[in-house]
Amino acid sequence: MRIEKYRIEEHNQAGMAAQQRAFEYLSGEIKNVPEILQQLIAFQVGIPSWALGTGGTRFGRFPGGGEPRNLEEKIEDIGLIHQLNQSSGAISLHIPWDIPSNPAHIKAMAAQHGLRFDAMNSNTFQDQPGQKWSYKFGSLQHVNKDIRKQAIEHNIEVIRHGIELGSDALTVWLSDGSCFPGQLNFRHAFQNTLEGLQEIYAALPDHWKIFVEYKAAEPNFYSTTVGDWGQSLLYANKLGPKAYTLVDLGHHLPNANIEQIVALLLMEGKLGGFHFNDSKYGDDDLTVGSIKPYQLFLIFNELVEGMDARGMNHTTDLGWMIDASHNVKDPLEDLLQSVEAIMITYAQALLVDRKKLLAAQQNNDVVTAQEILQQAFRTDVRSLVAAARIQAGGALNPLALYRAEKVREHLIRERGAKTMATGL
Amino acid sequence: MRIEKYRIEEHNQAGMAAQQRAFEYLSGEIKNVPEILQQLIAFQVGIPSWALGTGGTRFGRFPGGGEPRNLEEKIEDIGLIHQLNQSSGAISLHIPWDIPSNPAHIKAMAAQHGLRFDAMNSNTFQDQPGQKWSYKFGSLQHVNKDIRKQAIEHNIEVIRHGIELGSDALTVWLSDGSCFPGQLNFRHAFQNTLEGLQEIYAALPDHWKIFVEYKAAEPNFYSTTVGDWGQSLLYANKLGPKAYTLVDLGHHLPNANIEQIVALLLMEGKLGGFHFNDSKYGDDDLTVGSIKPYQLFLIFNELVEGMDARGMNHTTDLGWMIDASHNVKDPLEDLLQSVEAIMITYAQALLVDRKKLLAAQQNNDVVTAQEILQQAFRTDVRSLVAAARIQAGGALNPLALYRAEKVREHLIRERGAKTMATGL
Amino acid sequence: MRIEKYRIEEHNQAGMAAQQRAFEYLSGEIKNVPEILQQLIAFQVGIPSWALGTGGTRFGRFPGGGEPRNLEEKIEDIGLIHQLNQSSGAISLHIPWDIPSNPAHIKAMAAQHGLRFDAMNSNTFQDQPGQKWSYKFGSLQHVNKDIRKQAIEHNIEVIRHGIELGSDALTVWLSDGSCFPGQLNFRHAFQNTLEGLQEIYAALPDHWKIFVEYKAAEPNFYSTTVGDWGQSLLYANKLGPKAYTLVDLGHHLPNANIEQIVALLLMEGKLGGFHFNDSKYGDDDLTVGSIKPYQLFLIFNELVEGMDARGMNHTTDLGWMIDASHNVKDPLEDLLQSVEAIMITYAQALLVDRKKLLAAQQNNDVVTAQEILQQAFRTDVRSLVAAARIQAGGALNPLALYRAEKVREHLIRERGAKTMATGL
Amino acid sequence: MRIEKYRIEEHNQAGMAAQQRAFEYLSGEIKNVPEILQQLIAFQVGIPSWALGTGGTRFGRFPGGGEPRNLEEKIEDIGLIHQLNQSSGAISLHIPWDIPSNPAHIKAMAAQHGLRFDAMNSNTFQDQPGQKWSYKFGSLQHVNKDIRKQAIEHNIEVIRHGIELGSDALTVWLSDGSCFPGQLNFRHAFQNTLEGLQEIYAALPDHWKIFVEYKAAEPNFYSTTVGDWGQSLLYANKLGPKAYTLVDLGHHLPNANIEQIVALLLMEGKLGGFHFNDSKYGDDDLTVGSIKPYQLFLIFNELVEGMDARGMNHTTDLGWMIDASHNVKDPLEDLLQSVEAIMITYAQALLVDRKKLLAAQQNNDVVTAQEILQQAFRTDVRSLVAAARIQAGGALNPLALYRAEKVREHLIRERGAKTMATGL
Repeated sequence: MRIEKYRIEEHNQAGMAAQQRAFEYLSGEIKNVPEILQQLIAFQVGIPSWALGTGGTRFGRFPGGGEPRNLEEKIEDIGLIHQLNQSSGAISLHIPWDIPSNPAHIKAMAAQHGLRFDAMNSNTFQDQPGQKWSYKFGSLQHVNKDIRKQAIEHNIEVIRHGIELGSDALTVWLSDGSCFPGQLNFRHAFQNTLEGLQEIYAALPDHWKIFVEYKAAEPNFYSTTVGDWGQSLLYANKLGPKAYTLVDLGHHLPNANIEQIVALLLMEGKLGGFHFNDSKYGDDDLTVGSIKPYQLFLIFNELVEGMDARGMNHTTDLGWMIDASHNVKDPLEDLLQSVEAIMITYAQALLVDRKKLLAAQQNNDVVTAQEILQQAFRTDVRSLVAAARIQAGGALNPLALYRAEKVREHLIRERGAKTMATGL
Repeated sequence: MRIEKYRIEEHNQAGMAAQQRAFEYLSGEIKNVPEILQQLIAFQVGIPSWALGTGGTRFGRFPGGGEPRNLEEKIEDIGLIHQLNQSSGAISLHIPWDIPSNPAHIKAMAAQHGLRFDAMNSNTFQDQPGQKWSYKFGSLQHVNKDIRKQAIEHNIEVIRHGIELGSDALTVWLSDGSCFPGQLNFRHAFQNTLEGLQEIYAALPDHWKIFVEYKAAEPNFYSTTVGDWGQSLLYANKLGPKAYTLVDLGHHLPNANIEQIVALLLMEGKLGGFHFNDSKYGDDDLTVGSIKPYQLFLIFNELVEGMDARGMNHTTDLGWMIDASHNVKDPLEDLLQSVEAIMITYAQALLVDRKKLLAAQQNNDVVTAQEILQQAFRTDVRSLVAAARIQAGGALNPLALYRAEKVREHLIRERGAKTMATGL
Repeated sequence: MRIEKYRIEEHNQAGMAAQQRAFEYLSGEIKNVPEILQQLIAFQVGIPSWALGTGGTRFGRFPGGGEPRNLEEKIEDIGLIHQLNQSSGAISLHIPWDIPSNPAHIKAMAAQHGLRFDAMNSNTFQDQPGQKWSYKFGSLQHVNKDIRKQAIEHNIEVIRHGIELGSDALTVWLSDGSCFPGQLNFRHAFQNTLEGLQEIYAALPDHWKIFVEYKAAEPNFYSTTVGDWGQSLLYANKLGPKAYTLVDLGHHLPNANIEQIVALLLMEGKLGGFHFNDSKYGDDDLTVGSIKPYQLFLIFNELVEGMDARGMNHTTDLGWMIDASHNVKDPLEDLLQSVEAIMITYAQALLVDRKKLLAAQQNNDVVTAQEILQQAFRTDVRSLVAAARIQAGGALNPLALYRAEKVREHLIRERGAKTMATGL
Repeated sequence: MRIEKYRIEEHNQAGMAAQQRAFEYLSGEIKNVPEILQQLIAFQVGIPSWALGTGGTRFGRFPGGGEPRNLEEKIEDIGLIHQLNQSSGAISLHIPWDIPSNPAHIKAMAAQHGLRFDAMNSNTFQDQPGQKWSYKFGSLQHVNKDIRKQAIEHNIEVIRHGIELGSDALTVWLSDGSCFPGQLNFRHAFQNTLEGLQEIYAALPDHWKIFVEYKAAEPNFYSTTVGDWGQSLLYANKLGPKAYTLVDLGHHLPNANIEQIVALLLMEGKLGGFHFNDSKYGDDDLTVGSIKPYQLFLIFNELVEGMDARGMNHTTDLGWMIDASHNVKDPLEDLLQSVEAIMITYAQALLVDRKKLLAAQQNNDVVTAQEILQQAFRTDVRSLVAAARIQAGGALNPLALYRAEKVREHLIRERGAKTMATGL
């Protein structure tokens, strides 16, 4: 489904007076507005193909309706999100859920929606029908060489699909680990995994990156073989310059200081990308910014500072992706909320007065350092984000327009009330 | 499947010399051996009908084979466990997964296996095919009265099934809660839930109990409407004398002191029962005693102390049940390990010298208090547990005999390699 | 030290243009501005007398200078804070650190600074010189009746001091608990504590309240005898209508949903008061709002909703106090930041559109419910808070004026660089 | 104080019959008894000089009596422990608390007690009287080069003291970090710290090691500059072959899998040593094995496996030290309990049937792998540990003899009831 351009314009027109008031007020208070607008327009967040349907837990799943039935419909859904917010111009595919039967067609279709293909995701945490070997006891870590080989080949196949689509990165999230003490020899598991990653690494095209994602627990409940940033960095360093760590916000032990991890990975030149979401208890995969928005701000604060210190391009030098699950919300609405939270937070991070902050740090003026961060975070930048979006051709209020256009009702009529997208 | 009695005897005979050595040594070191043996023989742990198949996570499920295809086969499986360890003489059913079409037959069949029916479990955390209203946004907490009514009626139906089978308790675990701030009015949710529980309570036969189970998180990831023991106790107190709190070991926030909770609930006369399992990160539902065996001992230490202080019967005055999930183990083997861990720990708790402990506490002799507990915990009581089991007609080493008899292979031949038991 | 009134006026004048711009913009966007201003002006946060000096940890303490040397100087310091922000019109004393030798004089002096005496705090977690019995193994929980009696009498003495000063509440925080399994009989410890609290309760004047504070851990590292809200509520219910639970934000297990606890305590009519601070790992006692400002907002959201539902007075019906420790900041600056964070958050909570929120909840419109909360939280209300403050006679920017006036330098000159306030 | 040799013999004689029964029974059940006895006899745990007095928290300290007043008395205390258990033959000093005025004398005195000098500990987390620069805002991380230099020089001074005493390792625990977001530039803090460590590293004698200890939080409550094993390993790798990571059991985030960390550090050849203690909530510094004895066993299981895989000497290739705090126990009794827990656990880890475990792992036989570990952990090895101790000249039951000899009473008479050892 596409929204007619004039409908967007009408919507924008209706809210423009209030937007102008807010934007003008804010423009009087902050510096570098044009530059920030350009940075906001450039910033794009990848949408995962598996987040377009209703998610669930081991206790059940309560599907909504109108979920995309195939890759084409997934691209349409992301295209719609991007049409509304102009900040979601990338799609992150998951193999085997999204194997394109006709890659050229899919690529062209995505391009029509203004979408490029972000990191490809492999899956060795589930068994697929017809699969020879089971991943019940892991994939790259497995004691059985045949199973490791199968997992390696799957990842190489994912790279091949990615090449055809113009992607340039592979995200490897391994659920490998153990549920009980004694189940694994940790060292052997690490070494098997490393060897597998090395074979996959060898199959990467020159300009590709591989992202080694870590996670503290789930689905294994005693150990995970890529369990924290320290382990991921060990793998990445042993693999070589194309290997990076990927940070998923929900994959940490309680109370972890994620922003410090981000700063150190950037320092080491080994931060590859992000999976955005939010959580209170574990890998809850909630809407970005819905639980701990200040933590998100502190992370972006480190990202901006650290990328600038290395002369990195904010938009293209890291992989920015959402990885959320939508159990009680319309997935598209949830994604609109998530991207909005990211844009707001990025804008706030751009407002931080870095010179003053550094000066406060140099003076151990902790009070002022806190004030500087809070000054940025307490600033209401929503009109700034909206201005960028409108300038890029998007909607003043994507969520409001989505509802006004009755998109979900339309999708249900078109696709049915009981469709079920592939994914978790 | 039943194991021939002579096979058990042969197995016991083969290991009897070592068992005798161990038992004789231990008998010389501890007091009250005959009394402890009687207590161990009397102690029975309920097996949940949903734990006989392979469990899984939202990321997948890796089934084994030979899983029970119906309630009869579930009873057979538990009967086999009980035959081996003589400590699993109860079954805890889950409705609608285990609705008995012919209750009298089921009851008789269970009796043949020496099994009684422990607490019945209702399910308002999933939608069943053909169900009128969805529990997507809760059941007893729901803003819609019709949905609350449907959930109440389901619970009353579960009581009816339980009456037919001779059960005398209902466990209500509600997944009700919210995933996002703002989703719920906490007060309204509590009050709706209370009203629903009151209607269910009113339908309880005189000699029945209702167990209100609490859980910190999952499947809701922001709030749970019966979230901790404090909330459960509030409900139980408002409901009346037949209402109790049920403690599941995996349902707490990190670092919670569960043994203190147990002691206080016993003090208040409001501890109803237990769901045993173990965990490292959350509600991991791992084998009992596999991660934190000393915590389990400290809990049993409070149970024994607190029950004795109230003159309660160890065996019958609380509901003892396992609630675990078996993702990487043969479910029956896992259950054998879990029951063994419980029996060992109960035996150790019985060894605690309570007079000396009280004296040490009265003197603030913290060192001696610790020594007394560790003295019990460090004692190898396996031969004691085995002696009780053999005396009751069970196997010296249930797990070893289970494997020697190739039970799983037999079940796979009988039931097929791809059966899938109802459950999580 | 007092700041000359004209200095405040000059300071306000200098920033007034920007303030007016912000306030006028905001006034155009929100409703009920005059009413909210009145609520903000009325709202007062108690400052603890022990938070005026540099705090520390078991690893050390790095004092600043100019700390108050006696109760008079503490009142001066709080008077100064209140002069600047007009929102700190109460002082919470700690006995024995702040025993007033001349209560009438102290009371008059406080009144001159516009301060009233908030809840009194007793101390049975330390041994004082000359004290007969040691609290090494607890106070009200103690196995020795003489020690319990000493602790009871101390609390009654604190009430007497409070009466003389015009306070009307006693906060009892007990560090009682245990460091090792076996050290305590949990039930006896609870019952001893209850009996002690009952004797203290009996000594309360009619219009007084007693606040039973809970804490998960520290200084005891295995159990705490008032360890969570469930335990505190048990005590409060057994004590009677003058007993309430006090919530300290840092006293919970990881990931606890504090806002739900607040809502339920209000529902039960048993929430008595608050100790504000912030934390990342444990009872870190950091500046309010410095780590999890959205959690603070969600708590205030429940407070406003729950108090309104019971027709409670926002200002007077709960005890609002800060309980923080300032290890690396000037304590007065830290307190100014904390009160500012509280006022901002309270203002945001007042902005929540409760009708719309209830409607969204009634429709299970989770997306809209989240939007409503975020709408309030993302609003920059600093100019609103400042307007209220200016209207009440305070400074536009208390922290900036504090620094411009070189208050700390002045205090160091007056009191010395090596003074050390009583407290932690 | 020394205990007369004949008193030890009398004590041993009195309990020998029971010990013999237990040992003979156990010897019949396990293999390699003589070899295990030799390993137990060889194994020595370093005692920290700061753990001989009563510890405390920021809330207070409740001293006992008879605490050592100087380094000589500390050596006497450790000598006594070692005399009793023959497993505490090393002392870990802390500078400046333990600066030896006459190193040759101290060294000789230690030798008389059979003690060698384990890792030296520096202190840049407190300010000492007369110190030029303050560590309020860190030491090696500090923005001020002079302060970094002061901290570097202190560490080099500690090395010098260590050389004189025959130590061969330096433990650097930095409390450096921040209490608030914005306070630190994480990257600069890391780099300053690295440069400081590099200078200290350059001052190490050839055969020395430097241990970089990590800690998640406290005394800084927002970030720590050596916060987890990943950070410590980064430093250690950048420093060179003499730099290692030191693991303190209480320095992790909730739920961390410490045994996996240990295995990976051993794999990398970068595990340097251990600080043993136990905890429930944070860095509680409780008696080893008093809270999570199975976790301790799993750690030792990895240690034995990993050291054997690298051909390392169990006794000499890692630094084994206790780091506990004794708030409610007699420190010497606490240390006796801690060392006993370590010896028991080490013995159990030596019992693990590694061949069978590896075979189970190769077959993904999770049930058997668990059984093998539990088989070792459930074995009562106390008589084995006692046999080794007696063989080495120690006491059958060190704690019982310590009490029977009224050591504490003796020390109080000798040193006074109000002495206070340097330390935390």
